[in-house]
Amino acid sequence: MRLHPLLYRRSLEEFLKEDLGHGDITTLSLGLSSKAEAVVRAKEPLVVAGIPFVVELFRILDPEATFEVMRGEGEEAAEGDELLRIRASVDALLMGERTALNLLQRLSGIATLTKSMVEAVRGTRATLVDTRKTTPGLRLFEKYAVRVGGARNHRMGLYDCAMIKDNHIKAAGGIKKAVEAVRKGIPYTARIEVEVRNLEELEEAMEAGADIALLDNMDVSTMRKAVELAAGRILLEASGGINPQNIREVAETGVDYISAGFIIHHAVWKDINMKLL
Amino acid sequence: MRLHPLLYRRSLEEFLKEDLGHGDITTLSLGLSSKAEAVVRAKEPLVVAGIPFVVELFRILDPEATFEVMRGEGEEAAEGDELLRIRASVDALLMGERTALNLLQRLSGIATLTKSMVEAVRGTRATLVDTRKTTPGLRLFEKYAVRVGGARNHRMGLYDCAMIKDNHIKAAGGIKKAVEAVRKGIPYTARIEVEVRNLEELEEAMEAGADIALLDNMDVSTMRKAVELAAGRILLEASGGINPQNIREVAETGVDYISAGFIIHHAVWKDINMKLL
Amino acid sequence: MRLHPLLYRRSLEEFLKEDLGHGDITTLSLGLSSKAEAVVRAKEPLVVAGIPFVVELFRILDPEATFEVMRGEGEEAAEGDELLRIRASVDALLMGERTALNLLQRLSGIATLTKSMVEAVRGTRATLVDTRKTTPGLRLFEKYAVRVGGARNHRMGLYDCAMIKDNHIKAAGGIKKAVEAVRKGIPYTARIEVEVRNLEELEEAMEAGADIALLDNMDVSTMRKAVELAAGRILLEASGGINPQNIREVAETGVDYISAGFIIHHAVWKDINMKLL
Amino acid sequence: MRLHPLLYRRSLEEFLKEDLGHGDITTLSLGLSSKAEAVVRAKEPLVVAGIPFVVELFRILDPEATFEVMRGEGEEAAEGDELLRIRASVDALLMGERTALNLLQRLSGIATLTKSMVEAVRGTRATLVDTRKTTPGLRLFEKYAVRVGGARNHRMGLYDCAMIKDNHIKAAGGIKKAVEAVRKGIPYTARIEVEVRNLEELEEAMEAGADIALLDNMDVSTMRKAVELAAGRILLEASGGINPQNIREVAETGVDYISAGFIIHHAVWKDINMKLL
Amino acid sequence: MRLHPLLYRRSLEEFLKEDLGHGDITTLSLGLSSKAEAVVRAKEPLVVAGIPFVVELFRILDPEATFEVMRGEGEEAAEGDELLRIRASVDALLMGERTALNLLQRLSGIATLTKSMVEAVRGTRATLVDTRKTTPGLRLFEKYAVRVGGARNHRMGLYDCAMIKDNHIKAAGGIKKAVEAVRKGIPYTARIEVEVRNLEELEEAMEAGADIALLDNMDVSTMRKAVELAAGRILLEASGGINPQNIREVAETGVDYISAGFIIHHAVWKDINMKLL
Amino acid sequence: MRLHPLLYRRSLEEFLKEDLGHGDITTLSLGLSSKAEAVVRAKEPLVVAGIPFVVELFRILDPEATFEVMRGEGEEAAEGDELLRIRASVDALLMGERTALNLLQRLSGIATLTKSMVEAVRGTRATLVDTRKTTPGLRLFEKYAVRVGGARNHRMGLYDCAMIKDNHIKAAGGIKKAVEAVRKGIPYTARIEVEVRNLEELEEAMEAGADIALLDNMDVSTMRKAVELAAGRILLEASGGINPQNIREVAETGVDYISAGFIIHHAVWKDINMKLL
Repeated sequence: MRLHPLLYRRSLEEFLKEDLGHGDITTLSLGLSSKAEAVVRAKEPLVVAGIPFVVELFRILDPEATFEVMRGEGEEAAEGDELLRIRASVDALLMGERTALNLLQRLSGIATLTKSMVEAVRGTRATLVDTRKTTPGLRLFEKYAVRVGGARNHRMGLYDCAMIKDNHIKAAGGIKKAVEAVRKGIPYTARIEVEVRNLEELEEAMEAGADIALLDNMDVSTMRKAVELAAGRILLEASGGINPQNIREVAETGVDYISAGFIIHHAVWKDINMKLL
Repeated sequence: MRLHPLLYRRSLEEFLKEDLGHGDITTLSLGLSSKAEAVVRAKEPLVVAGIPFVVELFRILDPEATFEVMRGEGEEAAEGDELLRIRASVDALLMGERTALNLLQRLSGIATLTKSMVEAVRGTRATLVDTRKTTPGLRLFEKYAVRVGGARNHRMGLYDCAMIKDNHIKAAGGIKKAVEAVRKGIPYTARIEVEVRNLEELEEAMEAGADIALLDNMDVSTMRKAVELAAGRILLEASGGINPQNIREVAETGVDYISAGFIIHHAVWKDINMKLL
Repeated sequence: MRLHPLLYRRSLEEFLKEDLGHGDITTLSLGLSSKAEAVVRAKEPLVVAGIPFVVELFRILDPEATFEVMRGEGEEAAEGDELLRIRASVDALLMGERTALNLLQRLSGIATLTKSMVEAVRGTRATLVDTRKTTPGLRLFEKYAVRVGGARNHRMGLYDCAMIKDNHIKAAGGIKKAVEAVRKGIPYTARIEVEVRNLEELEEAMEAGADIALLDNMDVSTMRKAVELAAGRILLEASGGINPQNIREVAETGVDYISAGFIIHHAVWKDINMKLL
Repeated sequence: MRLHPLLYRRSLEEFLKEDLGHGDITTLSLGLSSKAEAVVRAKEPLVVAGIPFVVELFRILDPEATFEVMRGEGEEAAEGDELLRIRASVDALLMGERTALNLLQRLSGIATLTKSMVEAVRGTRATLVDTRKTTPGLRLFEKYAVRVGGARNHRMGLYDCAMIKDNHIKAAGGIKKAVEAVRKGIPYTARIEVEVRNLEELEEAMEAGADIALLDNMDVSTMRKAVELAAGRILLEASGGINPQNIREVAETGVDYISAGFIIHHAVWKDINMKLL
Repeated sequence: MRLHPLLYRRSLEEFLKEDLGHGDITTLSLGLSSKAEAVVRAKEPLVVAGIPFVVELFRILDPEATFEVMRGEGEEAAEGDELLRIRASVDALLMGERTALNLLQRLSGIATLTKSMVEAVRGTRATLVDTRKTTPGLRLFEKYAVRVGGARNHRMGLYDCAMIKDNHIKAAGGIKKAVEAVRKGIPYTARIEVEVRNLEELEEAMEAGADIALLDNMDVSTMRKAVELAAGRILLEASGGINPQNIREVAETGVDYISAGFIIHHAVWKDINMKLL
Repeated sequence: MRLHPLLYRRSLEEFLKEDLGHGDITTLSLGLSSKAEAVVRAKEPLVVAGIPFVVELFRILDPEATFEVMRGEGEEAAEGDELLRIRASVDALLMGERTALNLLQRLSGIATLTKSMVEAVRGTRATLVDTRKTTPGLRLFEKYAVRVGGARNHRMGLYDCAMIKDNHIKAAGGIKKAVEAVRKGIPYTARIEVEVRNLEELEEAMEAGADIALLDNMDVSTMRKAVELAAGRILLEASGGINPQNIREVAETGVDYISAGFIIHHAVWKDINMKLL
């Protein structure tokens, strides 16, 4: 799902200003203004994510900039592969380089890790999804990278799906009452997910008419029972401590979704550089 | 170096709004408003960074919130240690929880990794510093976490120190000419750093009167020669591919500073949670 | 569902600045600053909506302002009934009066009209919901007023529920293909609604696994058949030209939801004034 | 009076973002990007207002969009008449459709109602003007629609004309003192209007040198006497409860201006749709 | 005319951030946080303007700050006089000092120069007013200082009074046509001023019903004739090259207003400092 | 050092909006839209500064505007010299004229005064630099004008160079301790300047390893001794009460830098006008 620049252009401007402050004092002192070509290259194997943001970012700095994309979103690149060529004024290239790479490296790191975990569940019923554990200010970008990596998104925030947790349940006086109260308050188009810790609570959630049950830190044998109990009447999402080591085992329990903050909070940057020719 | 809330309050508001969108539909549907207490706890060993931001964030949501800090900035916490107690309205706690933890986990991850690499160079002449490889939009926060972890900051952006790289040198026609041109353009209070790839360039940088030489991806034996050649007349910064494995060896060459993007782009989140009592 | 001030405080400030411009030249010239009490009163029968915004708005102008609410959100008021008393500095009262009333009159107009149409479907299976036909910039407020009036919200925007319309269907090559493509792209927690014009399309939508079918401008006899055909396997929403005259008849077809832009775009302001005592 | 896009472009972006949130999940999932043509058509008789905003809005979404205007600002359209054709990318058309129509329907509603009341006073001395009773955040747009409908604007806000009301008079100790105090504080280019409830107050206002007297909720026979008393030495504005039924009678009293919030707060949306060809 | 903080608080925050950037690195490194008292003192004779902004500015930095005002707005201070005492945290005082003084010195400079020119016309019919020649971004503040200095404001911007200049007249085809066209387009409450270069044009402006004539760079003898010709039927404003040397002579011609950009664009800062006790 | 438009475009928009408010009611009422040519001309001798901002400002109002620059940044112009020709739509020219000139006149005033003081120190060792005494909100622009006038910038704000003043020294317990504490807290790339009042303090500052000593209001004979004492081991900056009369004498003491707020706070606007052809 590509994003319209209206959704992120302002953010890119803020990112650039964070680095530029009162100006790139080195580049501007040299009065550079000729056109040049730069090549962005992978320095290690990776899944590419973020090229459209890089393109927009350099357009902000130089509206006449032109681009040639060698590796599109979601494609794999080997060490040394060219991802993108940019033709723009030298000062635009030098001013935007670091911010562009910071974003591209971060997002490609997420897409690469995501893809490896997507591969790990291939052939099972389970779909890998993300969580709300994202870097503050970057959710739109990081959830985009998750999609590029082949996983799907969980809710985008506190606003687009109801999620009833233990504190809500306690406050409402039980799962049933919580689901009823929430159903009245939210847009009718929104789904209701309930966090359950055991089969009794799963039962209750189903009876209350919840759409999704989040199996919170359950062991795999309980998950298997949950799958049996649910029998397709409610969507099941496994969650809690998912990582590359345990995800396959969880997927094989038959749950519908596995949510993993890991693909974002344990992603490190991929090495990518940019050189002027 | 603590930051004044004026510098980050607007960012925190944006972070909260990113998660809240048109509202926390679950919590608000339940009409929760009683006071409650929450405890923030380390789930693995870590160096704490970010508590002042968490405090300010909950003040935004509930101006009457009160706080008890158990582990201050830069302190180590063991698994299970309480870091902070917050007394606020339930809905403020539930709305702010995820955003607060996302920031705290990220920053504590950076501080913890930073501290381990600071330890690695203890006893040498070298000081660990960061780079401009920071998450877009979070530089103020991430560079703060680096300081909390015991390292120092390199320049904050393109604006507060001149850094002359190979493209600048090419454009200006040599190191000497580049330094001269830059010196005229920048605030007189700003230092000039020159990226050098070998001893000849280091020599040139010194002759040109540069304040700092960045030894770009040099092997350690060349670095040692650079230290000899410089003889204290110019500050030397080692840079390029620094990681926990090689940092000690680099530090022992006698350079003044070692800059490592690694402490930020390879930091993963520390596990921290928040529970309502 | 009450909203946290963080979600609307900035908007209220903008609303005030729109009216204040470079300042209330009349009031400020008189140098008024004493405390006074104002009473907000209904001048015709209405359902109250917007009091929390009025309270926050005067707090922006005078942080020491105090309030006494006589008629809470959703309550009915007769002509002459007091809704709210405000004690604040005279200049705050005079500067905020018009903006506060503009918002309160608009929102109470919506809540009142909504409530009358909610009454009209009482006893049927149908729930009244709103649409995206809201005044630009005021959606959060107007959809809030709809809830206060007793109806529920449809999706809040293009982002929190997928809605497949004829143009999407044409572009994708059929309902089935459209639903499949959309399902892959959206958060898994989001529902998919499909606009259908006849029973064949309804059939297709059900087969494609859509969650909701929007019965677009269907006559009531076709709607009745749709209800039979659906037999509870898909949620049915009637839409198109709903007004106070025809809503009961539509509701009696057995559809689950009726969406009506009318409650917003045909709501006129309720007469409310504010007097200084 | 046309407005420069600098005055409203930022607002249009905010309006679009209100609807788009984190993105149009339906349209973007389908990856639509081909060019298409859309036609905007009146579904009931109306006076057109808002086309320039619609044009700018689609330019924000697609800078290459082109437009053909069939009915310009202030022209009448019959049911079925085409108002505008837009050629742009499909996704831009689908993303902007609702927001564009929401604005166009609202503004055409105001222009249409305004025009009917302008017609009602034709042949009298009176000019119809608006008030500050406008939808918060939309004043610039709504007052523009009033002009398109053939009426004139009253002051735009609290800042561009002084208006002395009873509370000001009480605080200052009489009309004369209030006018004097206000005259000293405001830009000399600004006019002073005084709210008067009877002929004595009108007399006082004239003596104090006010430029305009607002005849506040006077009956028409008193208004007629006010016109006689004023004898052209002060502008007279009738105000309070003006509607299509009573406006002619008021106009025939000989007052100079009649201000009516009715043209805005009782305007409902005109039915307009947009179809992709 | 005092201003409500809502009108300038955001500006003060921006002013502070301009100076603070990523933080006051000196003060914050020292970890200062104790309370201290500072005294603001005139270092040369001046008319005080700007104290309310200084107060609000330090409240932004330290909400607990307290203030004692010794010389209020518009009062004269001699060299060495204390203007204000501030009790706040040391770091707030150090961070805000420069920005506070920059504003206070600039505004007191304007108020002082304004007052001297107000004195120069004392006893004549003329009132001194400012122009739109103000520092970009500071108009609200600078026009405030003009009022503090005892002069009145001309229009605040292009929006609150119509001013017809030669280019408008040419485009419209004469003064009469221009006035008529403008009268239809502007709020009825706004005045119309016409720039005239000679007595013929003044005649035309009066016939067209303009409210004010701006006598553009006329010599004093022509001005005197203009006063005779006008005979109170139109307000006369002398403008163009007014300075302390020629203002009295101009005032004695009998014009109503004299507008002088000089009081702003030739005002230099008054010397004021702040010391911590 | 030229600035990238990203750094100031938003400010220019704000400047324009400050003047435009809800619109240029005169120009817009006349419905002007033809193309015209305007010429910007010096009305007194000056050094030109600000043309790039004027160009960008008119591009905001009319993206098709074209420009011919006759006098570039830093060039001298005599009375009557053309500086710039602009071809744009008439309404853009009329709307932007005042704001463009306000900026250009202010900045040329600064550049002209700066250049005269730069000339005054020609042939000495000293370089003229500015201070943080700049108009709030305009620092980027005013410090740019200082560079155009031939001087260099001191630090841009509290963030890009440490400056230890007497209050810091007192709080830290001496110069040595203050320098040590500050060195640990700031980016390693930042210089440390210490304010010294006499030779003893200068000695201490050198021992503490400060990079720069600010000689605070010293008499010239003490300055001469300071130059001897420093002997090139620390940079010396003379500061306090510098003006055109005393700057040469100060420069001849042998100090490295002379900082003068005078070039900004005593600069008056240069007379520049704009005429439509």
